[in-house]
Amino acid sequence: MSLVLAPTAQDLLFREARTANTFTDEPVTEEQVQAIYDLVKFGPTAFNQTPLRVTLVRSAEARERLVAHMSEGNQAKTATAPLVAILSADNEFHEELPQLLPHFPQAKDAFFAERPVRENSAQVNAALQAGYFIIGVRAAGLAAGPMTGFDFAGVQKEFLDEDHSPLMVVNIGRPGDDAWFPRSPRLGYEQVITTV
Amino acid sequence: MSLVLAPTAQDLLFREARTANTFTDEPVTEEQVQAIYDLVKFGPTAFNQTPLRVTLVRSAEARERLVAHMSEGNQAKTATAPLVAILSADNEFHEELPQLLPHFPQAKDAFFAERPVRENSAQVNAALQAGYFIIGVRAAGLAAGPMTGFDFAGVQKEFLDEDHSPLMVVNIGRPGDDAWFPRSPRLGYEQVITTV
Repeated sequence: MSLVLAPTAQDLLFREARTANTFTDEPVTEEQVQAIYDLVKFGPTAFNQTPLRVTLVRSAEARERLVAHMSEGNQAKTATAPLVAILSADNEFHEELPQLLPHFPQAKDAFFAERPVRENSAQVNAALQAGYFIIGVRAAGLAAGPMTGFDFAGVQKEFLDEDHSPLMVVNIGRPGDDAWFPRSPRLGYEQVITTV
Repeated sequence: MSLVLAPTAQDLLFREARTANTFTDEPVTEEQVQAIYDLVKFGPTAFNQTPLRVTLVRSAEARERLVAHMSEGNQAKTATAPLVAILSADNEFHEELPQLLPHFPQAKDAFFAERPVRENSAQVNAALQAGYFIIGVRAAGLAAGPMTGFDFAGVQKEFLDEDHSPLMVVNIGRPGDDAWFPRSPRLGYEQVITTV
């Protein structure tokens, strides 16, 4: 076996984990979200910039506002998931670099003085952290349903501000009845990996 | 405990895993890379587009060319890591959508006819997959050292083409002597997560 991670953990995080389309009523607690964050916060990012921000949509009123911005095919599951999270990138993450990179606080001005550079870096590194976050949700025994089918400008205006760009919306909970579509194919090793 | 994943697996993937700066001589085999890919290929992406591509730099000649494009502080570790991988985003991923999304092959033209849309989607989804890839490297008991300190245009010209945008370079291997810097701080829960 080439992997050290136990096969049951491989199943939990990748092989049996799936993007759920239906959920049970079981709530996702604050303690679970805290445990997920306390695990995935350690995933590496460039300059330790950790630009991912998470908005938990818990009130009925906020849920209704969010559903209105989802594409039609995503509305029913977003309305019924036990918890919905808006993942966004903080384009002003550099303000936290003195805290995050105490051995090199000059990085804030040396590398991230320009907003377009920050926006690009925030998008890439927040997406990297979204990968860790989805794995973390699965580590809590929950299904994550990431979606990009929504009105990005509408969600930004409704829930965020000009310094936070939406990245994806994630439905979180225990899978319900008929939760899965058939697994779609994946690319073969030789289509993805080349050697030079 | 709010997490289902075993504490030893949590340590392996997040808490004890670190970005290594030195490595032992032990090679990273083709079998290990295959096992990593066969695990992380299942991570979700939008429209199952899976735009991440990986270039394994195995020959001495290619390694030398890559090191020349790394920033000074990254050259020594890139020269000595058992395996170096260039992660890139395939901006023409839509050509594979008929294979990847057999129930909705129209997505290729309906959503991804325009190159700027593809480039943005490829960058975000390849970064998401880079998160899965780093977790997969750790699942193999190896350290991953992701780096963005290199000449992006130079690496693209030298190793890729105009349809593949470099995302990061990752050093892979078993940690050597003095492999770790002290762990940098992370943001508190309340700095990252808000509830509405």
